[in-house]
This record gives sequence, C-alpha cells and structure tokens, in this order.
Amino acid sequence: MKKLHRNERISVLLKILTDAPGNVFTFSTFTEMFGSAKSTISEDIDILKDIVAKFDLGSIETIPGAAGGVRYVPSISDEQAASILRNLSVELSRKERILPGGFLFMLDIIYSPVEMDKIGRIFASHFFPLAIDYVITVETKGIPLAYATARYLNVPLVIVRHYNEAADGASVNINYVSGSSKRIQTMVLSIRALKRKSRLLFIDDFMKGGGTARGIIDLAKEFECEVPGIGILVETEKPEKKLVDDYLSLLVLKNVEEEADAVNVGLSPKIMEKWNIKP
Amino acid sequence: MKKLHRNERISVLLKILTDAPGNVFTFSTFTEMFGSAKSTISEDIDILKDIVAKFDLGSIETIPGAAGGVRYVPSISDEQAASILRNLSVELSRKERILPGGFLFMLDIIYSPVEMDKIGRIFASHFFPLAIDYVITVETKGIPLAYATARYLNVPLVIVRHYNEAADGASVNINYVSGSSKRIQTMVLSIRALKRKSRLLFIDDFMKGGGTARGIIDLAKEFECEVPGIGILVETEKPEKKLVDDYLSLLVLKNVEEEADAVNVGLSPKIMEKWNIKP
Repeated sequence: MKKLHRNERISVLLKILTDAPGNVFTFSTFTEMFGSAKSTISEDIDILKDIVAKFDLGSIETIPGAAGGVRYVPSISDEQAASILRNLSVELSRKERILPGGFLFMLDIIYSPVEMDKIGRIFASHFFPLAIDYVITVETKGIPLAYATARYLNVPLVIVRHYNEAADGASVNINYVSGSSKRIQTMVLSIRALKRKSRLLFIDDFMKGGGTARGIIDLAKEFECEVPGIGILVETEKPEKKLVDDYLSLLVLKNVEEEADAVNVGLSPKIMEKWNIKP
Repeated sequence: MKKLHRNERISVLLKILTDAPGNVFTFSTFTEMFGSAKSTISEDIDILKDIVAKFDLGSIETIPGAAGGVRYVPSISDEQAASILRNLSVELSRKERILPGGFLFMLDIIYSPVEMDKIGRIFASHFFPLAIDYVITVETKGIPLAYATARYLNVPLVIVRHYNEAADGASVNINYVSGSSKRIQTMVLSIRALKRKSRLLFIDDFMKGGGTARGIIDLAKEFECEVPGIGILVETEKPEKKLVDDYLSLLVLKNVEEEADAVNVGLSPKIMEKWNIKP
C-alpha cells in the first residue's frame, strides 16, 4: 500500500479505535498497517485525542509500558448525556403513549437502534471502570439496549430466557418471584453461556419491583459470577423499595394516569446527582 | 468554535456519516457545523470517498440536486465478506460445538456484538437497495443480528413475540405451523409497532423448514406490509424445500453427526454464486 496522508491515517485510526472500545492496540499494529514510523503514529494519536475531546466522541488513552498501546474509552460528557435523557423524557411523557390499563407504550423507543445506541453509550461510559466481562439481560424487551451497551463495552452479550430450548444444550434453571406481580417465573441459562468467575453487568429496559434483577444475581451465583453493575432505562417511582439496592436507573416513571391523560417520565434522582443536573 | 483542520473535519465527517447509514446530510449541515465554505466541505468529502474505498469501509455517495447532499452506504467488498464467512464457517464447524441430540452450539457467536456487527454489515450491504423501512425478527436468538442489521440500515427494529404482553397494548396475533416440528405456534405483534404499507426485511439466525419466515409474511399482510427481503445466517441443508423461496442464507449446516464427532458448516450456494467464490 502506498504511503498514506495524515488525513487518511487519522480517519481510519478513529474508525478502528471506536469500533473496538477498550481494546488496547499496540503502536506496532498501526506502524505495520500504515507503514509509518512510531513517532508519526504518536503524532496522529495526539491529534485524534484532541478531536474526540472536542467533539465529545469519548476519549482516547495512551497506555505506557511494554504491554502498552492506545485504546478508545466510550465516555460521554455530562451535558450530552443530560440532553439525550431530557429529550427522551419529553418523548416518553407524550400522552399518546398511554395505553389501556395505564401502561406506557415504549416499544418504538426501546427497539430503535438510534435511541438504544445513545443509551448504550451512556451506560458503557458509566460502567466501563467496573471491568465488566459480559452484559447480561433477560428476554425480550431489554435485548436491544443490552446489545448496544455490550457493543460499546466490547464484551459479549448473554441472554437469559424464560423457557428451555433443547438446541442450546444443558442449562441452569432457577425460579424467582417477580417483584411487582409476585408471580413465580423461571430463568434459564445455557451452562456454556458464561465463563466462571466473571463480572456481569445486568441491563434492562424497565424495573418495577426489582425481582428480575434479584433473580439475575441469584442465577449469577450458580455460575460463580458476580454482578457489580445494574443499569435500568426506566424504573417506576413505586414501589420505592426495590428488591435490589445498588443500581443505576436513568429515568423514573412517576405515574400513568389513564383518565387524566397525563404521564410523567423524568430524570432519575441518581442521574441528577451524578451529573449535577437541576430538575 | 475555532476553525478546524482538515484532519479534524474529515475524521468527524467519517464518524457522523457512518453512524447514520443511508441518511442524506445536506452540505449546509456541514458548512454550518464546521464554519467552512461549501467548496472546502466538497474537497473533504472527495478525500473521504477515497479513504472509505481504500479501506473497504463502505462507500460515500454524493447526491446532486436541490434535495441533494451526501450519505454513507454500508457496502462491503466480496473479498472481505467472503473472508468473514469463511472464518465463521470454520469456527462453527468445530466439533466441540456438537451438543447432545445432534444440535449445534451457536449462542456465543449469535450473541456476540463483534460477530453480529460483521454479519449485520453483510446483510445491510446486500439489502440496502431494497429501500427497507423496518427490520423484523421473532424473539429471541435472532434479535442481536436483526439489531445489528437495522443499525447498519439505519431503520427501526421490530420484534415479534410468542406471547402477548398487556403492557404493549392491542396486538395482532396469528398462528403458524413450524416448518420442521409441525408444531402450531403463535406470533404476536403490537398494533402500534408498524406503519401500514411498509417494506420489511426479515432477519433470523437459523432456518430449518422456513415456517417462521412464512409466518412473518402472513403477519406482514395483516399490517398491509410486504417482505421484500429475508436474510438468514445459517440454514439447514435439509429439508431442501423450504416454505419460502426467495431468501438469502449465508451459511449452510450440512449435518451434525453426534457419533462421528463431525459437523460441517459451509458457505451457502447463493453466496458462493453471488460473490463468485470457489468452494
């Protein structure tokens, strides 16, 4: 390949690094790829650091030492994250979303790659320091968000199911009690799905009582895994006491009043505190 | 914002365009964003066209006229696609993947964002010309691939479920017969999930008899939608005659011989013909 311009190297570096968040690329990967000197690549990386900072695209870190190199970290500024969540809370509070029975229609949002990509980036930014090995979710509605988060963290996704499927081999099954409906449900996870001693991030679109999150923690124990992070897109204001304590929810659903035609989705108190946002 | 270097503009342009495939951005979007003249942005775009072509990152197209602008099209070269599928066929043919009952373990692959991103790009590249409005799939195992494909096509994802959920409002339910097991199953889709007269792309991880694909076509009719594209990651060699005719499968599962410890996943004949690949 003939020598590349700096323009070309920088654009391609940005694409390669952002496509594999957290992955440490050695400088020699790039000196070989571009046929350039290490000093040239170093200068490219410095320019790139400024670019991603200026446009709030995350951050690029240089790791010194023999095992060193360069990696992309999927961070997001407080302002950008707050703006994304404010827009989403307005969209979700539209009264056309109220369904019979007082439910809130969210499928168009939680299945939208454009929207879930933004939220996945927020979760990845928050949970990146926890050195997560897998993102885990329960079928079905949280899967797009869990996938987006896993992609930004560059880790595999694990999907827990409600029913056993012969095609997936032996499984661990546990029963759990839904926090809100008190119904007994089953969680099924293929024995091959998780490496033992892993660190899991549980992601879901919605939390009411917290029974599902509790179930995931119990299931993780059967695999000798721990769950250092729980990320929820929307939690209900009530019940105030959930079956898990330590979780990050982004939005809070205050009430769906079918008769009054009013729904209120706001930023969660934890988020407002974390990002120092005024109500 | 102070004037940017060409390096910076090009990197950011690449990120913005590739993050919203198919979306036409007017030149004035970028002249305003960067505070640069239209001629400068035009030159940037020309450089970018060369970069994405050289690194097989897709293609960038300029659309002339009053409604014109520039967009990213998620294409992939035959060589790169063939290489991705060859590697995957080798990985899926490992005998450690054979499960009791003659099933093939694929969960680690079909839930991997890294792997599904590659396959989603291949499908998006193939189906982009069909002007798809939604990607549709049936829960659960095809969701990550369908999400990845929808992201590359920059269209919403729709997930058909097997059970009704009160929280999603009124739904259309149809019964269909699984092509292989002949079992009657139900498909449920929220009435609000799809706009009428839309063009759907059905994506799934696995096809045996084709009953699910057939069911999706029937369900689509209830929404006055058509299904101009069907993309399948792995189809079984038998039965040869499926319940749908017009679909693109990437890989073919030839047999899982539990006793012989042999499994054989190869590139599908359609793919080998399309990309002129030797067996």
